[in-house]
Amino acid sequence: MADEQLTKSDAVTVRRKPERADYRRETANAILDEALVAHVGISVDGQPFVIPMAFGRDGDRIILHGSVATRLLRELDAGVRVCVTVTLVDALVLARSQFHTSMNYRSVVIVGTARRIRDLDTARRAMAALVEHVVPGRTAEARPPTDAELRQIAVVELPIDTASVKMRTGGPIEEPEDMELPIWAGVVPLRTTLGTPEPDGQGVADAALPPSLLPYRRPGS
Amino acid sequence: MADEQLTKSDAVTVRRKPERADYRRETANAILDEALVAHVGISVDGQPFVIPMAFGRDGDRIILHGSVATRLLRELDAGVRVCVTVTLVDALVLARSQFHTSMNYRSVVIVGTARRIRDLDTARRAMAALVEHVVPGRTAEARPPTDAELRQIAVVELPIDTASVKMRTGGPIEEPEDMELPIWAGVVPLRTTLGTPEPDGQGVADAALPPSLLPYRRPGS
Repeated sequence: MADEQLTKSDAVTVRRKPERADYRRETANAILDEALVAHVGISVDGQPFVIPMAFGRDGDRIILHGSVATRLLRELDAGVRVCVTVTLVDALVLARSQFHTSMNYRSVVIVGTARRIRDLDTARRAMAALVEHVVPGRTAEARPPTDAELRQIAVVELPIDTASVKMRTGGPIEEPEDMELPIWAGVVPLRTTLGTPEPDGQGVADAALPPSLLPYRRPGS
Repeated sequence: MADEQLTKSDAVTVRRKPERADYRRETANAILDEALVAHVGISVDGQPFVIPMAFGRDGDRIILHGSVATRLLRELDAGVRVCVTVTLVDALVLARSQFHTSMNYRSVVIVGTARRIRDLDTARRAMAALVEHVVPGRTAEARPPTDAELRQIAVVELPIDTASVKMRTGGPIEEPEDMELPIWAGVVPLRTTLGTPEPDGQGVADAALPPSLLPYRRPGS
Protein backbone atom coordinates (compact mmCIF):
# COMPACT_ATOMS: atom_id res chain seq x y z
CA MET A 1 0.00 0.00 0.00
CA ALA A 2 2.29 2.67 -1.27
CA ASP A 3 -0.12 5.48 -0.49
CA GLU A 4 -1.14 4.37 2.97
CA GLN A 5 -1.42 7.40 5.24
CA LEU A 6 -0.18 7.77 8.80
CA THR A 7 -2.54 9.05 11.50
CA LYS A 8 -2.31 12.83 11.44
CA SER A 9 -3.20 13.74 15.01
CA ASP A 10 -2.85 17.18 16.51
CA ALA A 11 0.36 16.04 18.23
CA VAL A 12 2.28 15.30 15.04
CA THR A 13 0.74 17.67 12.50
CA VAL A 14 3.48 19.87 11.06
CA ARG A 15 2.26 23.45 11.44
CA ARG A 16 5.46 25.32 10.68
CA LYS A 17 6.31 25.09 6.95
CA PRO A 18 3.58 22.49 6.23
CA GLU A 19 4.88 22.16 2.66
CA ARG A 20 7.79 20.21 4.17
CA ALA A 21 5.48 17.63 5.76
CA ASP A 22 4.63 14.16 4.49
CA TYR A 23 2.16 11.73 6.03
CA ARG A 24 2.73 8.62 3.90
CA ARG A 25 3.83 5.44 5.63
CA GLU A 26 6.16 4.63 2.74
CA THR A 27 8.09 7.90 3.21
CA ALA A 28 8.41 7.34 6.96
CA ASN A 29 9.57 3.74 6.50
CA ALA A 30 12.32 4.73 4.07
CA ILE A 31 13.75 7.23 6.58
CA LEU A 32 13.47 4.80 9.48
CA ASP A 33 15.19 2.05 7.49
CA GLU A 34 18.13 4.27 6.56
CA ALA A 35 18.80 5.69 10.04
CA LEU A 36 20.86 4.02 12.77
CA VAL A 37 19.76 5.88 15.89
CA ALA A 38 16.42 6.97 17.33
CA HIS A 39 16.05 9.70 19.95
CA VAL A 40 13.48 8.49 22.44
CA GLY A 41 11.72 11.06 24.63
CA ILE A 42 9.72 10.49 27.78
CA SER A 43 8.65 12.85 30.51
CA VAL A 44 9.11 12.12 34.22
CA ASP A 45 7.42 14.57 36.63
CA GLY A 46 7.40 17.22 33.90
CA GLN A 47 11.09 16.82 33.07
CA PRO A 48 11.62 15.52 29.53
CA PHE A 49 14.45 13.06 28.86
CA VAL A 50 15.76 12.31 25.39
CA ILE A 51 17.90 9.18 25.07
CA PRO A 52 19.64 7.89 21.92
CA MET A 53 18.88 4.25 21.18
CA ALA A 54 19.46 1.64 18.52
CA PHE A 55 16.16 0.57 17.03
CA GLY A 56 14.61 -1.67 14.45
CA ARG A 57 11.52 -1.57 12.27
CA ASP A 58 9.35 -4.64 12.02
CA GLY A 59 6.54 -3.83 9.61
CA ASP A 60 4.39 -1.13 11.20
CA ARG A 61 6.22 -1.17 14.55
CA ILE A 62 9.39 0.32 15.98
CA ILE A 63 11.38 -2.08 18.17
CA LEU A 64 13.45 -0.77 21.10
CA HIS A 65 15.27 -2.69 23.77
CA GLY A 66 17.38 -2.22 26.83
CA SER A 67 18.16 -3.62 30.24
CA VAL A 68 15.10 -4.21 32.40
CA ALA A 69 16.93 -2.09 34.99
CA THR A 70 16.95 1.09 32.87
CA ARG A 71 14.64 3.92 33.89
CA LEU A 72 13.59 4.50 30.29
CA LEU A 73 12.57 0.89 29.76
CA ARG A 74 10.78 0.76 33.12
CA GLU A 75 8.81 3.88 32.21
CA LEU A 76 7.95 2.54 28.75
CA ASP A 77 6.82 -0.72 30.32
CA ALA A 78 4.61 1.31 32.68
CA GLY A 79 2.84 2.79 29.65
CA VAL A 80 4.05 6.41 29.63
CA ARG A 81 3.63 8.52 26.49
CA VAL A 82 6.70 8.42 24.29
CA CYS A 83 8.03 10.32 21.29
CA VAL A 84 10.50 8.58 18.99
CA THR A 85 12.30 10.85 16.53
CA VAL A 86 14.65 9.68 13.78
CA THR A 87 16.66 12.18 11.74
CA LEU A 88 18.92 11.97 8.71
CA VAL A 89 21.05 15.00 7.80
CA ASP A 90 21.50 15.10 4.03
CA ALA A 91 23.35 18.35 3.30
CA LEU A 92 24.61 21.68 4.54
CA VAL A 93 22.86 24.60 2.86
CA LEU A 94 24.98 27.74 2.51
CA ALA A 95 22.96 30.85 1.67
CA ARG A 96 24.32 34.29 0.89
CA SER A 97 22.95 35.42 4.26
CA GLN A 98 23.76 33.92 7.66
CA PHE A 99 20.01 34.02 8.37
CA HIS A 100 19.24 31.46 5.67
CA THR A 101 22.06 29.07 6.57
CA SER A 102 20.32 25.72 6.80
CA MET A 103 20.54 21.95 6.49
CA ASN A 104 18.67 19.52 4.32
CA TYR A 105 17.25 16.72 6.44
CA ARG A 106 14.54 14.07 6.68
CA SER A 107 12.94 13.29 10.02
CA VAL A 108 10.17 11.11 11.39
CA VAL A 109 8.32 11.89 14.63
CA ILE A 110 6.24 9.08 16.14
CA VAL A 111 4.16 9.49 19.29
CA GLY A 112 2.27 6.89 21.25
CA THR A 113 2.57 4.34 23.97
CA ALA A 114 5.03 1.47 23.79
CA ARG A 115 4.15 -2.07 24.78
CA ARG A 116 6.53 -4.62 26.23
CA ILE A 117 6.86 -7.89 24.33
CA ARG A 118 6.83 -10.54 27.04
CA ASP A 119 6.57 -13.70 24.96
CA LEU A 120 10.14 -14.90 24.46
CA ASP A 121 9.73 -16.16 20.90
CA THR A 122 8.05 -12.92 19.84
CA ALA A 123 10.81 -10.96 21.59
CA ARG A 124 13.43 -13.05 19.78
CA ARG A 125 11.89 -12.17 16.42
CA ALA A 126 11.73 -8.50 17.40
CA MET A 127 15.39 -8.58 18.42
CA ALA A 128 16.22 -10.13 15.06
CA ALA A 129 14.50 -7.16 13.36
CA LEU A 130 16.65 -4.83 15.45
CA VAL A 131 19.88 -6.66 14.59
CA GLU A 132 18.92 -6.75 10.89
CA HIS A 133 18.24 -3.03 11.06
CA VAL A 134 21.75 -2.28 12.33
CA VAL A 135 23.56 -4.83 10.15
CA PRO A 136 21.42 -6.27 7.34
CA GLY A 137 22.16 -9.99 6.99
CA ARG A 138 23.72 -10.34 10.43
CA THR A 139 21.08 -12.68 11.91
CA ALA A 140 22.22 -15.36 9.45
CA GLU A 141 25.73 -15.12 10.94
CA ALA A 142 25.54 -14.38 14.67
CA ARG A 143 24.23 -16.65 17.40
CA PRO A 144 20.53 -16.01 18.22
CA PRO A 145 19.62 -14.86 21.74
CA THR A 146 18.95 -17.49 24.40
CA ASP A 147 15.93 -17.35 26.68
CA ALA A 148 18.23 -16.27 29.53
CA GLU A 149 19.55 -13.35 27.47
CA LEU A 150 16.04 -12.27 26.50
CA ARG A 151 15.00 -12.28 30.16
CA GLN A 152 17.72 -9.73 30.97
CA ILE A 153 16.22 -7.14 28.65
CA ALA A 154 12.96 -5.45 27.93
CA VAL A 155 11.97 -5.51 24.26
CA VAL A 156 9.24 -2.97 23.50
CA GLU A 157 7.25 -2.12 20.40
CA LEU A 158 5.75 1.21 19.38
CA PRO A 159 3.20 1.31 16.54
CA ILE A 160 4.19 3.56 13.63
CA ASP A 161 0.75 5.06 13.54
CA THR A 162 0.50 8.60 14.89
CA ALA A 163 3.48 9.96 13.05
CA SER A 164 4.68 12.55 10.58
CA VAL A 165 7.63 13.20 8.34
CA LYS A 166 9.28 16.58 7.88
CA MET A 167 12.04 17.23 5.41
CA ARG A 168 13.95 20.00 3.70
CA THR A 169 15.42 19.52 0.24
CA GLY A 170 16.91 21.78 -2.40
CA GLY A 171 19.12 24.83 -2.46
CA PRO A 172 19.29 27.94 -0.30
CA ILE A 173 16.45 30.37 0.19
CA GLU A 174 17.66 33.89 -0.56
CA GLU A 175 16.46 37.45 -0.17
CA PRO A 176 16.23 39.01 -3.65
CA GLU A 177 18.67 41.81 -2.74
CA ASP A 178 21.31 39.27 -1.66
CA MET A 179 21.59 37.90 -5.19
CA GLU A 180 23.88 40.82 -6.08
CA LEU A 181 26.39 39.87 -3.37
CA PRO A 182 29.54 38.07 -4.59
CA ILE A 183 29.08 35.25 -2.07
CA TRP A 184 29.27 31.54 -2.88
CA ALA A 185 25.99 29.78 -2.11
CA GLY A 186 24.88 26.24 -2.61
CA VAL A 187 24.57 22.82 -1.07
CA VAL A 188 27.20 20.47 0.36
CA PRO A 189 25.96 16.85 0.50
CA LEU A 190 26.75 14.79 3.60
CA ARG A 191 26.87 11.05 3.80
CA THR A 192 27.79 8.39 6.30
CA THR A 193 30.62 6.18 5.12
CA LEU A 194 32.23 3.10 6.61
CA GLY A 195 35.87 2.72 7.47
CA THR A 196 37.80 -0.52 7.21
CA PRO A 197 36.29 -3.26 9.42
CA GLU A 198 38.58 -4.12 12.34
CA PRO A 199 38.32 -7.78 13.45
CA ASP A 200 38.75 -8.24 17.20
CA GLY A 201 41.30 -10.99 16.49
CA GLN A 202 40.23 -12.90 19.61
CA GLY A 203 38.42 -15.93 18.27
CA VAL A 204 38.72 -18.84 15.91
CA ALA A 205 37.11 -17.24 12.82
CA ASP A 206 39.37 -16.53 9.87
CA ALA A 207 39.92 -12.91 8.94
CA ALA A 208 37.67 -12.98 5.86
CA LEU A 209 34.79 -10.51 6.14
CA PRO A 210 31.30 -12.00 6.56
CA PRO A 211 28.64 -11.55 3.84
CA SER A 212 26.92 -8.80 5.90
CA LEU A 213 30.01 -6.62 5.39
CA LEU A 214 30.58 -7.46 1.70
CA PRO A 215 29.63 -4.70 1.36
CA TYR A 216 27.75 -3.23 4.29
CA ARG A 217 24.92 -1.09 2.97
CA ARG A 218 22.25 1.04 4.60
CA PRO A 219 18.90 0.80 2.79
CA GLY A 220 18.41 3.88 0.62
CA SER A 221 22.08 4.80 0.45
CA MET B 1 39.79 24.58 32.98
CA ALA B 2 40.27 21.17 31.46
CA ASP B 3 38.94 19.33 34.49
CA GLU B 4 35.89 21.46 35.16
CA GLN B 5 32.98 19.25 36.14
CA LEU B 6 29.38 19.49 34.99
CA THR B 7 26.56 19.50 37.56
CA LYS B 8 25.69 15.89 38.26
CA SER B 9 22.04 16.13 39.29
CA ASP B 10 19.76 13.18 39.76
CA ALA B 11 18.21 13.90 36.36
CA VAL B 12 21.39 13.36 34.37
CA THR B 13 23.35 10.88 36.47
CA VAL B 14 24.08 7.79 34.37
CA ARG B 15 22.90 4.81 36.41
CA ARG B 16 23.04 2.09 33.79
CA LYS B 17 26.67 1.20 32.95
CA PRO B 18 28.12 4.12 34.98
CA GLU B 19 31.59 3.24 33.68
CA ARG B 20 30.48 4.73 30.37
CA ALA B 21 29.66 8.11 31.95
CA ASP B 22 31.77 11.27 31.94
CA TYR B 23 30.98 14.53 33.73
CA ARG B 24 33.78 16.76 32.44
CA ARG B 25 32.82 19.92 30.55
CA GLU B 26 35.71 19.40 28.13
CA THR B 27 34.37 15.99 27.07
CA ALA B 28 30.87 17.36 26.57
CA ASN B 29 32.11 20.35 24.57
CA ALA B 30 34.12 18.17 22.18
CA ILE B 31 31.02 16.09 21.37
CA LEU B 32 28.80 19.16 21.01
CA ASP B 33 31.31 20.82 18.69
CA GLU B 34 31.56 17.81 16.40
CA ALA B 35 27.80 17.17 16.06
CA LEU B 36 25.46 18.92 13.62
CA VAL B 37 22.04 18.20 15.08
CA ALA B 38 20.52 18.33 18.56
CA HIS B 39 17.35 16.50 19.53
CA VAL B 40 15.34 18.86 21.70
CA GLY B 41 12.69 17.43 24.00
CA ILE B 42 9.85 19.19 25.75
CA SER B 43 6.68 17.91 27.34
CA VAL B 44 3.25 19.40 26.65
CA ASP B 45 0.41 18.08 28.86
CA GLY B 46 2.41 14.93 29.57
CA GLN B 47 3.14 14.20 25.90
CA PRO B 48 6.87 14.44 25.11
CA PHE B 49 7.98 15.90 21.79
CA VAL B 50 11.46 15.45 20.37
CA ILE B 51 12.43 17.78 17.54
CA PRO B 52 15.71 17.81 15.58
CA MET B 53 17.35 21.24 15.44
CA ALA B 54 20.52 22.89 14.29
CA PHE B 55 22.36 24.32 17.26
CA GLY B 56 25.50 26.16 18.25
CA ARG B 57 27.72 26.26 21.29
CA ASP B 58 28.79 29.62 22.65
CA GLY B 59 31.06 28.94 25.62
CA ASP B 60 28.98 27.32 28.32
CA ARG B 61 25.66 27.73 26.49
CA ILE B 62 23.75 25.91 23.76
CA ILE B 63 22.13 28.23 21.21
CA LEU B 64 18.88 27.22 19.48
CA HIS B 65 16.66 29.23 17.21
CA GLY B 66 13.47 29.04 15.23
CA SER B 67 10.48 30.98 14.08
CA VAL B 68 8.66 32.80 16.88
CA ALA B 69 5.56 31.00 15.56
CA THR B 70 6.86 27.50 16.36
CA ARG B 71 5.28 25.67 19.26
CA LEU B 72 8.67 24.49 20.49
CA LEU B 73 10.10 28.01 20.61
CA ARG B 74 6.95 29.39 22.26
CA GLU B 75 7.19 26.70 24.94
CA LEU B 76 10.90 27.31 25.51
CA ASP B 77 10.20 31.03 25.78
CA ALA B 78 7.53 30.24 28.38
CA GLY B 79 10.19 28.54 30.51
CA VAL B 80 9.32 24.85 30.23
CA ARG B 81 11.85 22.21 31.20
CA VAL B 82 13.88 21.03 28.24
CA CYS B 83 16.28 18.18 27.45
CA VAL B 84 18.80 18.66 24.66
CA THR B 85 20.56 15.48 23.50
CA VAL B 86 23.39 15.34 21.00
CA THR B 87 24.67 12.00 19.68
CA LEU B 88 27.56 10.91 17.48
CA VAL B 89 27.62 7.34 16.17
CA ASP B 90 31.22 6.20 15.83
CA ALA B 91 31.07 2.54 14.84
CA LEU B 92 29.02 -0.59 14.43
CA VAL B 93 30.02 -3.33 16.86
CA LEU B 94 29.51 -6.87 15.57
CA ALA B 95 29.65 -9.52 18.28
CA ARG B 96 29.52 -13.27 17.81
CA SER B 97 26.04 -13.19 19.40
CA GLN B 98 23.09 -11.13 18.19
CA PHE B 99 22.53 -10.16 21.83
CA HIS B 100 25.80 -8.22 22.00
CA THR B 101 25.37 -6.43 18.66
CA SER B 102 26.04 -2.80 19.52
CA MET B 103 27.24 0.61 18.40
CA ASN B 104 30.01 2.82 19.64
CA TYR B 105 28.69 6.31 20.31
CA ARG B 106 29.22 9.49 22.27
CA SER B 107 26.24 11.44 23.59
CA VAL B 108 25.57 14.50 25.72
CA VAL B 109 22.33 15.00 27.64
CA ILE B 110 21.63 18.51 28.96
CA VAL B 111 18.58 19.40 31.04
CA GLY B 112 17.40 22.77 32.21
CA THR B 113 15.35 25.78 31.24
CA ALA B 114 16.12 27.80 28.15
CA ARG B 115 16.04 31.59 28.13
CA ARG B 116 15.14 33.76 25.17
CA ILE B 117 17.74 36.28 24.08
CA ARG B 118 15.76 39.45 23.41
CA ASP B 119 18.54 41.97 22.92
CA LEU B 120 19.14 42.10 19.18
CA ASP B 121 22.93 42.52 19.32
CA THR B 122 23.26 39.62 21.75
CA ALA B 123 20.95 37.55 19.53
CA ARG B 124 23.09 38.45 16.51
CA ARG B 125 26.22 37.18 18.27
CA ALA B 126 24.40 34.00 19.31
CA MET B 127 23.25 33.44 15.72
CA ALA B 128 26.85 33.87 14.61
CA ALA B 129 27.86 31.08 17.02
CA LEU B 130 25.19 28.90 15.48
CA VAL B 131 26.31 29.60 11.91
CA GLU B 132 29.97 29.03 12.87
CA HIS B 133 28.93 25.73 14.44
CA VAL B 134 27.36 24.49 11.20
CA VAL B 135 30.01 25.92 8.86
CA PRO B 136 33.18 27.10 10.62
CA GLY B 137 34.38 30.35 9.01
CA ARG B 138 31.06 31.13 7.34
CA THR B 139 30.28 34.31 9.31
CA ALA B 140 33.26 35.98 7.58
CA GLU B 141 31.60 35.25 4.22
CA ALA B 142 27.82 35.52 4.52
CA ARG B 143 25.76 38.65 5.19
CA PRO B 144 24.99 39.12 8.93
CA PRO B 145 21.35 39.14 10.04
CA THR B 146 19.42 42.40 9.99
CA ASP B 147 17.31 43.54 12.93
CA ALA B 148 14.20 42.69 10.92
CA GLU B 149 15.45 39.12 10.38
CA LEU B 150 16.29 38.70 14.07
CA ARG B 151 12.77 39.87 15.02
CA GLN B 152 11.27 37.01 12.98
CA ILE B 153 12.95 34.37 15.11
CA ALA B 154 13.40 33.40 18.71
CA VAL B 155 17.01 32.82 19.71
CA VAL B 156 17.27 30.91 22.99
CA GLU B 157 20.15 29.81 25.17
CA LEU B 158 20.41 26.80 27.47
CA PRO B 159 23.26 26.63 29.99
CA ILE B 160 25.50 23.56 29.63
CA ASP B 161 25.38 22.97 33.35
CA THR B 162 23.23 20.04 34.45
CA ALA B 163 24.55 17.59 31.90
CA SER B 164 26.26 14.28 31.40
CA VAL B 165 28.15 12.38 28.74
CA LYS B 166 27.70 8.71 27.98
CA MET B 167 29.80 6.82 25.49
CA ARG B 168 30.72 3.35 24.34
CA THR B 169 34.11 2.59 22.86
CA GLY B 170 36.05 -0.54 21.99
CA GLY B 171 35.28 -3.96 20.61
CA PRO B 172 32.44 -6.39 21.17
CA ILE B 173 31.50 -7.87 24.51
CA GLU B 174 31.35 -11.64 24.22
CA GLU B 175 30.16 -14.61 26.22
CA PRO B 176 33.17 -16.89 26.88
CA GLU B 177 31.50 -19.87 25.19
CA ASP B 178 30.94 -17.86 22.00
CA MET B 179 34.69 -17.50 21.42
CA GLU B 180 34.73 -21.01 19.94
CA LEU B 181 32.20 -20.06 17.25
CA PRO B 182 33.69 -19.42 13.76
CA ILE B 183 31.93 -16.04 13.49
CA TRP B 184 33.60 -12.80 12.41
CA ALA B 185 33.44 -10.17 15.16
CA GLY B 186 34.84 -6.69 15.38
CA VAL B 187 34.18 -3.03 14.83
CA VAL B 188 33.22 -1.10 11.67
CA PRO B 189 34.03 2.63 12.00
CA LEU B 190 31.48 5.14 10.69
CA ARG B 191 32.19 8.67 9.67
CA THR B 192 30.37 11.57 8.06
CA THR B 193 31.93 12.66 4.78
CA LEU B 194 31.14 15.52 2.45
CA GLY B 195 30.26 15.21 -1.20
CA THR B 196 31.18 17.74 -3.85
CA PRO B 197 29.77 21.19 -3.09
CA GLU B 198 27.03 22.17 -5.57
CA PRO B 199 26.84 25.94 -6.22
CA ASP B 200 23.32 27.19 -6.81
CA GLY B 201 24.52 28.99 -9.94
CA GLN B 202 22.02 31.79 -9.42
CA GLY B 203 24.11 34.75 -8.38
CA VAL B 204 27.10 36.83 -9.35
CA ALA B 205 29.79 34.95 -7.35
CA ASP B 206 32.36 33.01 -9.34
CA ALA B 207 32.37 29.25 -8.97
CA ALA B 208 35.49 29.14 -6.75
CA LEU B 209 34.74 27.58 -3.37
CA PRO B 210 34.87 29.91 -0.35
CA PRO B 211 37.51 29.47 2.39
CA SER B 212 34.93 27.82 4.70
CA LEU B 213 34.76 24.89 2.24
CA LEU B 214 38.53 24.64 1.55
CA PRO B 215 38.24 22.17 3.16
CA TYR B 216 35.14 21.98 5.29
CA ARG B 217 36.00 20.33 8.59
CA ARG B 218 34.05 19.36 11.65
CA PRO B 219 36.00 19.94 14.87
CA GLY B 220 37.36 16.63 16.11
CA SER B 221 37.13 14.81 12.81
